[in-house]
Amino acid sequence: MKGFAFFGCAAAALMAGLPVEAGEGMWTFDNPPLKQLQERYHFTPTQEWLDHVRLSSVRMNDGGSASFVSGHGLLLTNHHVARGQLQKNSTAEHDYIANGFYAATPEQEMKSPDMEVNVLVSMENVTAQVVAAVSQAKTPEAQFAARRGVIAGIERASLDTTGLRSDVVALYHGGEYWLYRYKKYTDVRLVFAPEQQIAFFGGDPDNFTYPRYDLDMALFRVYENGKPIDSKDFLKWNPQGAANHELVFVSGHPGTTHRLNTMAQLEALRDLGQPNIIKNLKRRIAVLEQYSALGAEQARQAASAIFGAANSLKAAEGRYKGLLDKSVMAAKLKDEQEFQARIMANAEWRAAYGVAWAAIADAEKKAATRSQVRLYRGLDSQLATLATSIVELVAEVKKPDGERLAGFHEAQLESMRYRLYSPAPIYTAMEIARLTGSLEQSLAELGANDAFVKLALNGRTPKEAAAALVNGSKLADPAVRRKLVDGGQAAVAASDDPLIVLARRLDPLRRETNKWFEDNVQSVEQRAGEQLGKARFAVYGKTTYPDATFTLRLSYGEVEGYPMNGTVAPYKTTLFGLFDRAGSFDFEGPFYLPSRYQERRDRLDLSTPLDFVSSNDIIGGNSGSPVINRKGEIVGLIFDGNIEGLVGDYVYEEGTNRAVAVHTAAMTEALRKLYDAPRLVNELLGL
Amino acid sequence: MKGFAFFGCAAAALMAGLPVEAGEGMWTFDNPPLKQLQERYHFTPTQEWLDHVRLSSVRMNDGGSASFVSGHGLLLTNHHVARGQLQKNSTAEHDYIANGFYAATPEQEMKSPDMEVNVLVSMENVTAQVVAAVSQAKTPEAQFAARRGVIAGIERASLDTTGLRSDVVALYHGGEYWLYRYKKYTDVRLVFAPEQQIAFFGGDPDNFTYPRYDLDMALFRVYENGKPIDSKDFLKWNPQGAANHELVFVSGHPGTTHRLNTMAQLEALRDLGQPNIIKNLKRRIAVLEQYSALGAEQARQAASAIFGAANSLKAAEGRYKGLLDKSVMAAKLKDEQEFQARIMANAEWRAAYGVAWAAIADAEKKAATRSQVRLYRGLDSQLATLATSIVELVAEVKKPDGERLAGFHEAQLESMRYRLYSPAPIYTAMEIARLTGSLEQSLAELGANDAFVKLALNGRTPKEAAAALVNGSKLADPAVRRKLVDGGQAAVAASDDPLIVLARRLDPLRRETNKWFEDNVQSVEQRAGEQLGKARFAVYGKTTYPDATFTLRLSYGEVEGYPMNGTVAPYKTTLFGLFDRAGSFDFEGPFYLPSRYQERRDRLDLSTPLDFVSSNDIIGGNSGSPVINRKGEIVGLIFDGNIEGLVGDYVYEEGTNRAVAVHTAAMTEALRKLYDAPRLVNELLGL
Repeated sequence: MKGFAFFGCAAAALMAGLPVEAGEGMWTFDNPPLKQLQERYHFTPTQEWLDHVRLSSVRMNDGGSASFVSGHGLLLTNHHVARGQLQKNSTAEHDYIANGFYAATPEQEMKSPDMEVNVLVSMENVTAQVVAAVSQAKTPEAQFAARRGVIAGIERASLDTTGLRSDVVALYHGGEYWLYRYKKYTDVRLVFAPEQQIAFFGGDPDNFTYPRYDLDMALFRVYENGKPIDSKDFLKWNPQGAANHELVFVSGHPGTTHRLNTMAQLEALRDLGQPNIIKNLKRRIAVLEQYSALGAEQARQAASAIFGAANSLKAAEGRYKGLLDKSVMAAKLKDEQEFQARIMANAEWRAAYGVAWAAIADAEKKAATRSQVRLYRGLDSQLATLATSIVELVAEVKKPDGERLAGFHEAQLESMRYRLYSPAPIYTAMEIARLTGSLEQSLAELGANDAFVKLALNGRTPKEAAAALVNGSKLADPAVRRKLVDGGQAAVAASDDPLIVLARRLDPLRRETNKWFEDNVQSVEQRAGEQLGKARFAVYGKTTYPDATFTLRLSYGEVEGYPMNGTVAPYKTTLFGLFDRAGSFDFEGPFYLPSRYQERRDRLDLSTPLDFVSSNDIIGGNSGSPVINRKGEIVGLIFDGNIEGLVGDYVYEEGTNRAVAVHTAAMTEALRKLYDAPRLVNELLGL
Repeated sequence: MKGFAFFGCAAAALMAGLPVEAGEGMWTFDNPPLKQLQERYHFTPTQEWLDHVRLSSVRMNDGGSASFVSGHGLLLTNHHVARGQLQKNSTAEHDYIANGFYAATPEQEMKSPDMEVNVLVSMENVTAQVVAAVSQAKTPEAQFAARRGVIAGIERASLDTTGLRSDVVALYHGGEYWLYRYKKYTDVRLVFAPEQQIAFFGGDPDNFTYPRYDLDMALFRVYENGKPIDSKDFLKWNPQGAANHELVFVSGHPGTTHRLNTMAQLEALRDLGQPNIIKNLKRRIAVLEQYSALGAEQARQAASAIFGAANSLKAAEGRYKGLLDKSVMAAKLKDEQEFQARIMANAEWRAAYGVAWAAIADAEKKAATRSQVRLYRGLDSQLATLATSIVELVAEVKKPDGERLAGFHEAQLESMRYRLYSPAPIYTAMEIARLTGSLEQSLAELGANDAFVKLALNGRTPKEAAAALVNGSKLADPAVRRKLVDGGQAAVAASDDPLIVLARRLDPLRRETNKWFEDNVQSVEQRAGEQLGKARFAVYGKTTYPDATFTLRLSYGEVEGYPMNGTVAPYKTTLFGLFDRAGSFDFEGPFYLPSRYQERRDRLDLSTPLDFVSSNDIIGGNSGSPVINRKGEIVGLIFDGNIEGLVGDYVYEEGTNRAVAVHTAAMTEALRKLYDAPRLVNELLGL
């Protein structure tokens, strides 16, 4: 399971009407599940415990989570979260993905080209401010603008005052608004990564499944002012791990869930959203695999993109299966009907919130009429994406902060520029291949007369257009991008870089589409979402958790196996199992083992636990999260969920939903006996 | 997967209308799939090859298969096929099931109390004889009697002439009749069995699943006249096993399938047959587990019965799931409709066979009206079953052979008496528990006024009745049973043994029910079955295989993994995996390991293949069958099918249906390094 991707789903809120299941929930740190923990486990975390865990938890803006595991900034995450940075640091000569990396000395620790990590240092409820601003507007469109304005103002003011990254996040789809302030780090250096083959042992087949035998770990170190940070907020390393049925916590950043969506929204996802995502991912993978087949260097360049797309595809297919599952949809319908009945039975509630469901259903119907256009008017290319960002950036910064597009508010500009100027390599031939593939798709889906297609192709074939655009562009050089941004609208208007020219021409089209969706869909669903959020609090109180928003959450659960395919899956696997699964496939394909595993097998205690599962409620974005025991010690490293849990986008099923983690014992054993990394083992153990 | 059980399903025939899938089929040795083997594998077995394999294959009348693996009568089968005999030889002091058994010298080889094994020495097509006799009768009832008469005559004449066990078997549900002659052996001695815990490692959870880590093997030796037999018909031991994707054969005795059933029959199984079987098995298991909980000795006594019932339950639930699967039933319906359309399009065929489907559907409707009575008018007790057999036997033998009940024909009497006089122990307290449970069920399902219930209870509670019947009976002594049979009807009529008295009283009831089913269901479905069998040959020729009938069949397939629960299952497992799975569950419950496995682990080559899967088409009854390569060598030992293959009762699915076998390498490694059995290893390797 890798990171997650946002697919721009229209946001709106429906709170589940029924009490949550044991183990269910991605809880915010202001509202931890104290009642459930006390009733089921007789455990109540102190505020000190909660603060310590929160400040030890890290958001990886590449898409994923991490935690501090030493007082000197050592940061543990998954190999697959680190993978993008590994790829960007690799060359044809030094392939850190294939061969791994270990900095035997502090001097060898290797800077990441464009990684930003965040630590959530404070949370402030700003619902009243947002509601007050919005309530003065009458139409959904006016409310939309007012909401955007007040949020941008809060963020900017916070940034000015504190210097911290400041994001207002809508929880419960607008039932609450919170200002989250983050300490931001951008000097993040790679310390250790094993071979990708052992991190992702079993490859795409085993991805999202269990039993599993992966050492999906990587270690970074966070620096500030050229030195490792010093901090008391780190998780103590417990190499014994957790016992069967032990209570454990996961603190991390789940990306997106749709549990509070209305039936109308779920049906739109089922009938339009997910099938299109799947189709698009399959096309992208086919294009990348064709490129990859050209040679070893092409394969190396394309590997991360294929890896990410294949991962997304398997997850999307699992989610789609959940939406097609009649029993899942029946349960969601039952919840919605019960909630609706409670609202409709109270005259005041009915008047205030009763229209929300129909409003959302209407908005989804409207969205469906233009969703194809939005989906297929895109360019699959890093350079084209950079060009679009540059054209938008120079225009947006001239507007008042509150009126800018999402992502361009004052408080977000530093992170935006950090990404725009990344020195990571961009491969021309791969760019042409990807852009050709996406232009071919646009042409096929939208036809030659579509305005976007006409502008993009300009009389050329997709292949001709892609080659001309990429070959003619200088944007692969970060200095060129910086110069354009620094030159502002004048420089961008004067540029004859073909990708900038195209981005300029497409800009009005994209703005028109965005505006249409804002006016007809987002503004309506945001208002309805806020109504349903309030309705939920009115009926049930704040007894549940919000949908995932890639913000910090705490989940609790038990280390435990589960019924699987006619038998039972064990709560853990061992190193014996790694050698069994590799040997069972004659060490072929995704089941081969890096040579050190064969050569040093006899050094290992093969009964060492390798991976384990718990009933914690997680989803994409939680990758790299620590698994934590009652004492606040780290006992594992989340890297995946099981296939039965992919339906977790919509519903949590206690009996079968499992988080999959690397065991601390295996990480210790491997660092010590396979990777000769005593420096790290000692640091982890505090020796 | 253990043996199989016949549940008295009404027999009738429908041939599948479509060409069979690659790997599909339980082929008779007179009609091997030569075309498929040549087209797919460029392999054509010679007649010599076929004869050698057939004569090396053995039917275990406890329910299972086996093969000769040395020139001195060494017989390889599954531990779970040998289990009944192990249980019968065990005592509170010597528990061969828990501890295993090894005869270090020939003198220690241990006689089985009541095992009969058969080798198929000849096959003769007697369809013409049967058809000629039946064609002279007009009504289904008269045809039924004529068929029974001619078959009994053929069997008796063959026995008289050859001295061989002679069974006429209806193939294609009556499309063909064959006389099978068997060489019969009853001096079958146990040579080796491992601990049940390693034979059935993973227990009920892992049963019918894969990946698997079981050493489900046992070795017997067949004696004649007090000496091991001498024979050239045995399979050469190949300890290297088969490679991935290698062509392999399975020669064994699949018990029952329902692939040629009509939709009416399948629907009856779905709506009545399977749910009742499941209900009944659950009740039996509950009764046995209650008894088992009384103490260690009770647990030992009940273990085999619980094992068998739990195994049957898991299989029944898998079959039931298949019947509930709409896509399976839709495929079956499509096949039937295509076949019907072909018949109806030809005036001659339509006239001869067209009525068969409706006749079967009518018969199934009638059967449903009395199926509850038949199912719940039974006594779950070994002693009661023996009493019933004795009462029936002395009555039947006085009739002309052709008019007797099934099982009591002249040619079958020797095997019947062998079972009746078995010296195997019968445990009084367990008998009372089982009988109480089944009487309670009869009372609950049929009510106190049912004729059977009245006779069985005779005014007592189920518990009182069971205790009085069992405690008052002397039938646990084989000599008493023999005396009654030798005394004939007079002795049985004079007996005051309460179980004999009850069996006498119930006899008219049972005969009336049997007669009703014969007249209203079996006779109709046999005639219709013969019509459909002929129809199938008319339309498609003899291009397919008959449903399983616990007679010898040859299947072919490839060693290969399959897609499983989101990932892929490997073609084999290794000894590494055994230690992984045991350790993954902390060696608890069904995953503990016999001590020698821990103590001698370092002696083992853990990369040795343990189990493997192939696409061979098998079903319960195939347990213990050899897996054979092109050269006719044994490379594995069938012991189970995967959970995805349980639907195989109705349909074979090439992509996921897998036979699970123990690898010859693991058997060799274990005998040599864990069980110190060089005598057997040398015999197997021909050293």
